[in-house]
Amino acid sequence: MFKKRVNIKEIEEGRDLEPKFDANGLIPVITSDYKSGDILMHGYMNSQALKKTIETKEAYYWSRSRKKIWHKGKISGFMQKIKEIRIDDDQDAVWISVDIGRGASCHVGYRSCFYRSIPLGKIKNIKKLKIKFKEKKKKFDPKKIYKNEPNPTKI
Amino acid sequence: MFKKRVNIKEIEEGRDLEPKFDANGLIPVITSDYKSGDILMHGYMNSQALKKTIETKEAYYWSRSRKKIWHKGKISGFMQKIKEIRIDDDQDAVWISVDIGRGASCHVGYRSCFYRSIPLGKIKNIKKLKIKFKEKKKKFDPKKIYKNEPNPTKI
Repeated sequence: MFKKRVNIKEIEEGRDLEPKFDANGLIPVITSDYKSGDILMHGYMNSQALKKTIETKEAYYWSRSRKKIWHKGKISGFMQKIKEIRIDDDQDAVWISVDIGRGASCHVGYRSCFYRSIPLGKIKNIKKLKIKFKEKKKKFDPKKIYKNEPNPTKI
Repeated sequence: MFKKRVNIKEIEEGRDLEPKFDANGLIPVITSDYKSGDILMHGYMNSQALKKTIETKEAYYWSRSRKKIWHKGKISGFMQKIKEIRIDDDQDAVWISVDIGRGASCHVGYRSCFYRSIPLGKIKNIKKLKIKFKEKKKKFDPKKIYKNEPNPTKI
Protein backbone atom coordinates (compact mmCIF):
# COMPACT_ATOMS: atom_id res chain seq x y z
CA MET A 1 0.00 0.00 0.00
CA PHE A 2 2.81 2.39 0.98
CA LYS A 3 5.86 3.34 -1.09
CA LYS A 4 8.43 0.57 -1.36
CA ARG A 5 11.61 0.82 0.71
CA VAL A 6 14.63 0.69 -1.55
CA ASN A 7 17.21 3.12 -0.23
CA ILE A 8 18.43 3.68 3.33
CA LYS A 9 19.40 7.34 2.81
CA GLU A 10 15.91 7.98 1.41
CA ILE A 11 14.24 6.16 4.36
CA GLU A 12 16.22 8.14 6.93
CA GLU A 13 16.56 11.55 5.34
CA GLY A 14 13.83 11.65 2.73
CA ARG A 15 10.33 13.05 2.67
CA ASP A 16 8.58 9.89 1.43
CA LEU A 17 6.51 7.83 3.83
CA GLU A 18 7.90 4.28 3.66
CA PRO A 19 6.83 2.53 6.86
CA LYS A 20 8.26 -0.87 7.70
CA PHE A 21 5.78 -3.47 8.89
CA ASP A 22 7.18 -6.56 10.65
CA ALA A 23 6.73 -10.23 9.72
CA ASN A 24 3.17 -10.02 11.07
CA GLY A 25 2.42 -6.89 9.06
CA LEU A 26 2.53 -4.64 12.14
CA ILE A 27 4.33 -1.46 13.19
CA PRO A 28 4.66 -0.51 16.88
CA VAL A 29 2.87 2.65 18.00
CA ILE A 30 3.62 4.91 20.95
CA THR A 31 0.62 6.94 22.09
CA SER A 32 1.17 10.01 24.24
CA ASP A 33 -1.12 12.63 25.77
CA TYR A 34 -0.51 15.82 23.75
CA LYS A 35 -0.96 18.01 26.85
CA SER A 36 0.96 16.23 29.60
CA GLY A 37 3.37 14.28 27.38
CA ASP A 38 2.56 11.15 29.42
CA ILE A 39 2.69 7.88 27.54
CA LEU A 40 -0.82 6.48 27.43
CA MET A 41 -0.22 3.16 25.71
CA HIS A 42 1.96 1.06 23.43
CA GLY A 43 0.15 -0.66 20.56
CA TYR A 44 0.42 -1.85 16.99
CA MET A 45 -1.05 -0.83 13.64
CA ASN A 46 -1.22 -2.68 10.36
CA SER A 47 -1.10 -0.69 7.12
CA GLN A 48 -4.87 -0.27 7.04
CA ALA A 49 -5.01 1.01 10.64
CA LEU A 50 -2.24 3.51 9.90
CA LYS A 51 -4.07 4.77 6.82
CA LYS A 52 -7.38 5.08 8.69
CA THR A 53 -5.64 6.93 11.55
CA ILE A 54 -4.08 9.43 9.14
CA GLU A 55 -7.34 9.98 7.25
CA THR A 56 -9.91 10.04 10.07
CA LYS A 57 -7.68 11.72 12.69
CA GLU A 58 -8.80 9.15 15.24
CA ALA A 59 -6.58 6.29 16.42
CA TYR A 60 -7.08 2.86 14.91
CA TYR A 61 -4.92 -0.06 16.01
CA TRP A 62 -4.50 -3.74 15.21
CA SER A 63 -5.67 -5.80 18.15
CA ARG A 64 -3.32 -8.75 18.43
CA SER A 65 -5.61 -10.52 20.91
CA ARG A 66 -8.78 -10.06 18.86
CA LYS A 67 -6.95 -10.24 15.52
CA LYS A 68 -8.82 -7.33 13.99
CA ILE A 69 -8.71 -3.59 13.37
CA TRP A 70 -9.71 -1.77 16.49
CA HIS A 71 -11.16 1.73 16.61
CA LYS A 72 -9.83 2.83 19.99
CA GLY A 73 -12.62 4.02 22.28
CA LYS A 74 -15.45 2.52 20.27
CA ILE A 75 -16.74 0.63 23.33
CA SER A 76 -15.62 2.94 26.13
CA GLY A 77 -16.33 6.18 24.27
CA PHE A 78 -12.76 7.32 24.91
CA MET A 79 -11.64 7.97 21.34
CA GLN A 80 -8.15 9.31 20.75
CA LYS A 81 -8.18 12.45 18.61
CA ILE A 82 -4.91 12.72 16.71
CA LYS A 83 -2.90 15.90 17.21
CA GLU A 84 0.22 14.71 15.43
CA ILE A 85 1.72 11.56 13.93
CA ARG A 86 5.48 11.16 13.75
CA ILE A 87 7.60 8.41 12.27
CA ASP A 88 11.11 7.48 13.34
CA ASP A 89 14.46 7.45 11.54
CA ASP A 90 14.21 3.98 9.97
CA GLN A 91 10.41 4.30 9.70
CA ASP A 92 9.66 1.20 11.76
CA ALA A 93 7.87 2.92 14.67
CA VAL A 94 5.12 5.53 14.93
CA TRP A 95 4.43 8.10 17.66
CA ILE A 96 0.94 9.54 17.89
CA SER A 97 0.16 12.49 20.10
CA VAL A 98 -3.52 12.44 21.07
CA ASP A 99 -6.27 14.30 22.89
CA ILE A 100 -8.40 12.09 25.17
CA GLY A 101 -9.89 14.97 27.14
CA ARG A 102 -10.66 13.78 30.67
CA GLY A 103 -10.90 10.19 29.46
CA ALA A 104 -8.71 7.13 29.84
CA SER A 105 -6.71 4.85 27.56
CA CYS A 106 -6.21 1.73 29.67
CA HIS A 107 -8.59 -1.22 29.64
CA VAL A 108 -7.88 -1.78 33.36
CA GLY A 109 -9.47 1.63 34.05
CA TYR A 110 -6.48 3.94 34.51
CA ARG A 111 -5.77 7.01 32.40
CA SER A 112 -2.46 5.58 31.17
CA CYS A 113 -1.55 1.93 30.70
CA PHE A 114 1.76 2.81 32.37
CA TYR A 115 0.37 3.25 35.90
CA ARG A 116 3.16 1.35 37.65
CA SER A 117 6.80 2.28 38.20
CA ILE A 118 9.81 -0.06 38.60
CA PRO A 119 12.13 0.96 41.47
CA LEU A 120 15.70 1.77 40.39
CA GLY A 121 19.00 0.55 41.81
CA LYS A 122 20.68 -2.66 42.88
CA ILE A 123 18.31 -5.63 42.85
CA LYS A 124 18.56 -8.16 45.70
CA ASN A 125 16.02 -10.68 44.43
CA ILE A 126 14.50 -9.89 41.06
CA LYS A 127 11.54 -12.21 41.68
CA LYS A 128 10.59 -10.18 44.76
CA LEU A 129 10.95 -6.72 43.19
CA LYS A 130 7.82 -4.66 43.95
CA ILE A 131 6.47 -2.14 41.48
CA LYS A 132 4.71 1.02 42.67
CA PHE A 133 1.34 2.41 41.65
CA LYS A 134 1.72 5.96 40.27
CA GLU A 135 -1.96 6.31 39.45
CA LYS A 136 -4.02 5.67 42.54
CA LYS A 137 -7.54 5.95 41.23
CA LYS A 138 -9.20 4.40 38.19
CA LYS A 139 -10.97 6.71 35.75
CA PHE A 140 -13.70 4.13 35.08
CA ASP A 141 -14.89 0.69 36.16
CA PRO A 142 -13.91 -1.76 33.40
CA LYS A 143 -16.60 -4.26 34.46
CA LYS A 144 -19.31 -1.68 33.77
CA ILE A 145 -17.81 -0.50 30.49
CA TYR A 146 -16.60 -3.71 28.88
CA LYS A 147 -19.18 -6.12 30.36
CA ASN A 148 -18.64 -9.44 28.57
CA GLU A 149 -15.79 -8.36 26.29
CA PRO A 150 -12.79 -10.69 26.68
CA ASN A 151 -9.76 -9.27 28.50
CA PRO A 152 -6.99 -8.49 25.97
CA THR A 153 -4.27 -9.35 28.52
CA LYS A 154 -2.75 -12.76 27.91
CA ILE A 155 -0.39 -14.72 30.14
CA MET B 1 15.02 -14.46 35.42
CA PHE B 2 11.86 -12.55 36.35
CA LYS B 3 8.84 -13.87 38.25
CA LYS B 4 6.69 -16.25 36.24
CA ARG B 5 3.40 -14.99 34.84
CA VAL B 6 0.55 -17.15 36.08
CA ASN B 7 -2.41 -14.92 36.84
CA ILE B 8 -3.91 -12.09 34.77
CA LYS B 9 -5.33 -10.19 37.76
CA GLU B 10 -1.88 -10.31 39.37
CA ILE B 11 -0.16 -9.13 36.15
CA GLU B 12 -2.56 -6.19 35.77
CA GLU B 13 -3.25 -5.15 39.34
CA GLY B 14 -0.41 -6.64 41.33
CA ARG B 15 2.88 -5.28 42.60
CA ASP B 16 5.09 -8.05 41.21
CA LEU B 17 7.28 -7.35 38.19
CA GLU B 18 6.39 -10.03 35.62
CA PRO B 19 7.51 -8.67 32.23
CA LYS B 20 6.51 -10.49 29.07
CA PHE B 21 9.24 -11.02 26.51
CA ASP B 22 8.17 -11.94 22.98
CA ALA B 23 9.15 -15.00 20.93
CA ASN B 24 12.58 -13.38 20.36
CA GLY B 25 13.02 -12.69 24.08
CA LEU B 26 12.41 -8.94 23.65
CA ILE B 27 10.14 -6.31 25.19
CA PRO B 28 9.45 -3.00 23.38
CA VAL B 29 10.73 0.15 25.06
CA ILE B 30 9.50 3.73 24.70
CA THR B 31 12.12 6.32 25.61
CA SER B 32 11.03 9.86 26.40
CA ASP B 33 12.85 13.03 27.44
CA TYR B 34 11.93 13.59 31.11
CA LYS B 35 11.90 17.37 30.67
CA SER B 36 10.08 17.96 27.39
CA GLY B 37 8.09 14.71 27.29
CA ASP B 38 9.20 14.24 23.66
CA ILE B 39 9.62 10.69 22.50
CA LEU B 40 13.30 10.16 21.77
CA MET B 41 13.25 6.59 20.44
CA HIS B 42 11.52 3.22 20.29
CA GLY B 43 13.72 0.22 21.06
CA TYR B 44 13.82 -3.24 22.58
CA MET B 45 15.34 -4.83 25.67
CA ASN B 46 15.97 -8.45 26.52
CA SER B 47 15.76 -9.54 30.17
CA GLN B 48 19.45 -8.80 30.77
CA ALA B 49 19.21 -5.28 29.28
CA LEU B 50 16.15 -4.54 31.46
CA LYS B 51 17.98 -5.74 34.58
CA LYS B 52 21.10 -3.69 33.73
CA THR B 53 18.96 -0.61 33.07
CA ILE B 54 17.23 -0.94 36.45
CA GLU B 55 20.48 -1.51 38.31
CA THR B 56 22.84 0.94 36.61
CA LYS B 57 20.25 3.69 35.98
CA GLU B 58 21.55 4.01 32.41
CA ALA B 59 19.68 2.69 29.38
CA TYR B 60 20.74 -0.64 27.89
CA TYR B 61 18.92 -2.05 24.86
CA TRP B 62 19.06 -5.13 22.69
CA SER B 63 20.33 -4.17 19.25
CA ARG B 64 18.38 -6.25 16.74
CA SER B 65 20.74 -5.28 13.91
CA ARG B 66 23.94 -6.05 15.83
CA LYS B 67 22.37 -8.88 17.83
CA LYS B 68 23.89 -7.82 21.12
CA ILE B 69 23.33 -5.82 24.29
CA TRP B 70 23.87 -2.17 23.60
CA HIS B 71 24.82 0.44 26.17
CA LYS B 72 23.15 3.47 24.63
CA GLY B 73 25.60 6.32 24.11
CA LYS B 74 28.73 4.22 24.54
CA ILE B 75 30.08 5.40 21.17
CA SER B 76 28.49 8.85 20.93
CA GLY B 77 28.86 9.72 24.61
CA PHE B 78 25.13 10.45 24.80
CA MET B 79 24.15 8.10 27.62
CA GLN B 80 20.56 8.09 28.78
CA LYS B 81 20.28 8.61 32.54
CA ILE B 82 17.14 6.93 33.82
CA LYS B 83 14.69 9.14 35.71
CA GLU B 84 11.86 6.61 35.85
CA ILE B 85 10.91 3.20 34.44
CA ARG B 86 7.26 2.31 34.03
CA ILE B 87 5.62 -0.89 32.88
CA ASP B 88 2.22 -1.21 31.27
CA ASP B 89 -1.00 -3.00 32.26
CA ASP B 90 -0.17 -6.43 30.78
CA GLN B 91 3.55 -5.90 31.41
CA ASP B 92 4.59 -6.32 27.78
CA ALA B 93 5.95 -2.80 27.21
CA VAL B 94 8.29 -0.50 29.12
CA TRP B 95 8.45 3.30 29.23
CA ILE B 96 11.71 4.91 30.33
CA SER B 97 11.95 8.59 31.06
CA VAL B 98 15.53 9.78 30.61
CA ASP B 99 17.90 12.71 30.91
CA ILE B 100 20.15 13.23 27.88
CA GLY B 101 21.14 16.79 28.76
CA ARG B 102 21.85 18.71 25.57
CA GLY B 103 22.64 15.48 23.75
CA ALA B 104 20.86 13.43 21.11
CA SER B 105 19.33 9.98 20.83
CA CYS B 106 19.12 9.39 17.10
CA HIS B 107 21.90 7.74 15.08
CA VAL B 108 21.03 10.01 12.13
CA GLY B 109 22.10 12.99 14.26
CA TYR B 110 18.82 14.46 15.46
CA ARG B 111 17.82 14.83 19.10
CA SER B 112 14.82 12.53 18.69
CA CYS B 113 14.43 9.64 16.25
CA PHE B 114 10.94 11.00 15.57
CA TYR B 115 12.04 14.08 13.62
CA ARG B 116 9.44 13.75 10.86
CA SER B 117 5.68 14.26 10.96
CA ILE B 118 3.00 12.62 8.79
CA PRO B 119 0.39 15.09 7.48
CA LEU B 120 -3.19 14.33 8.58
CA GLY B 121 -6.37 14.13 6.51
CA LYS B 122 -7.66 12.56 3.33
CA ILE B 123 -4.91 10.90 1.30
CA LYS B 124 -4.96 11.29 -2.49
CA ASN B 125 -2.04 9.03 -3.33
CA ILE B 126 -0.45 7.27 -0.39
CA LYS B 127 2.76 6.59 -2.35
CA LYS B 128 3.23 10.33 -2.86
CA LEU B 129 2.51 11.42 0.72
CA LYS B 130 5.26 13.77 1.91
CA ILE B 131 6.41 13.82 5.52
CA LYS B 132 7.65 17.02 7.16
CA PHE B 133 10.85 17.64 9.07
CA LYS B 134 10.07 18.92 12.58
CA GLU B 135 13.72 19.05 13.61
CA LYS B 136 15.66 21.18 11.18
CA LYS B 137 19.17 20.87 12.50
CA LYS B 138 21.22 17.85 13.51
CA LYS B 139 22.81 17.81 16.95
CA PHE B 140 25.90 15.98 15.67
CA ASP B 141 27.46 14.65 12.49
CA PRO B 142 27.00 10.86 12.47
CA LYS B 143 29.94 10.36 10.08
CA LYS B 144 32.30 11.93 12.61
CA ILE B 145 30.85 10.08 15.60
CA TYR B 146 30.19 6.61 14.24
CA LYS B 147 32.99 6.44 11.64
CA ASN B 148 33.03 2.87 10.35
CA GLU B 149 30.18 1.51 12.52
CA PRO B 150 27.52 -0.15 10.34
CA ASN B 151 24.22 1.73 9.98
CA PRO B 152 21.52 0.00 12.10
CA THR B 153 18.79 0.95 9.59
CA LYS B 154 17.78 -1.98 7.40
CA ILE B 155 15.58 -1.96 4.30
